[in-house]
Amino acid sequence: MTKAIYLAGPDVFLPDAVEIGRRKVALCAAYGFNGLFPLDSAIDPKARDASLQIFHANQTMMDRADAIIANLTPFRGPSADAGTVYELGYMAGKGKRCFAYCNDPRIYADRIVGITASGGIKIDRDGSTVEDFGHVDNLMMIHALDLHGAPLVTPTRMPSDIWRDLASFEQCLTIASAR
Amino acid sequence: MTKAIYLAGPDVFLPDAVEIGRRKVALCAAYGFNGLFPLDSAIDPKARDASLQIFHANQTMMDRADAIIANLTPFRGPSADAGTVYELGYMAGKGKRCFAYCNDPRIYADRIVGITASGGIKIDRDGSTVEDFGHVDNLMMIHALDLHGAPLVTPTRMPSDIWRDLASFEQCLTIASAR
Repeated sequence: MTKAIYLAGPDVFLPDAVEIGRRKVALCAAYGFNGLFPLDSAIDPKARDASLQIFHANQTMMDRADAIIANLTPFRGPSADAGTVYELGYMAGKGKRCFAYCNDPRIYADRIVGITASGGIKIDRDGSTVEDFGHVDNLMMIHALDLHGAPLVTPTRMPSDIWRDLASFEQCLTIASAR
Repeated sequence: MTKAIYLAGPDVFLPDAVEIGRRKVALCAAYGFNGLFPLDSAIDPKARDASLQIFHANQTMMDRADAIIANLTPFRGPSADAGTVYELGYMAGKGKRCFAYCNDPRIYADRIVGITASGGIKIDRDGSTVEDFGHVDNLMMIHALDLHGAPLVTPTRMPSDIWRDLASFEQCLTIASAR
């Protein structure tokens, strides 16, 4: 049976989200997978309970899916989109296969402005420690991917359009199809 | 048997993380719970594989725990800390009880600087849609809490010290002990 992959990411917030979803689903099909894109659920965003409907539709898709490919490219801050990260955790907890990519190959600490060092420890402007293990994002996600699927895929160089370049997404599909 | 609660949050990055952990664990004990704070694992942050050790220690604690109380106060951006959100998702996926608080009671959209409206839809400076359902953070977390535990706890007013005020944390314990 064709394996289903849940396509998580802040892609849904982009102005051309529907088109990006179409491209991702088409790439999935080319690799023999059934791509499930959150916007495929026909929910009226103006409905009174639209928010809850979206949640249930996404959770139903995740429960149906065999795996997740999460877009962990930083969104509105130095880390991945919160909704996407929640979904990655949910799928890991469910024991599903977890794959992800991040189109910003910089390490997390290099995205934080105004870091100082105190006794060999990196500190942000608010006095909080900055994780400094050379990872692209929080260690929980990085090692979860190693354990539950495959290491995070990053491009060698940041693509000119980090939201529409799907080379790293496609690499996730290559890895998934080899499993 | 005493129920164990995993205490997730960016608290671990604060300069007085150990003291905050002690206070949280003491409050858990006062409510009859065994609080599991990530920093309780004795890991040398300078060890070669410290990052992986921390991941395994946290995952082991989560697997042992019956519930999670996540601190979803925004961290380095308009959303909750990515590691914390991953852990919330993981626990939801495992079918554990999920509780959380956020010491910033503003709705998510009100934390984004430079929003414009286009056809009734809120857009950020990068042209991405801003979720606008009146929630404090991404809808996946908000509804996951409703479904897997209890609604997100927020204070009526932002406390003067958002990282050390534990009134909303304690309210999570009150709710958890009533279940």
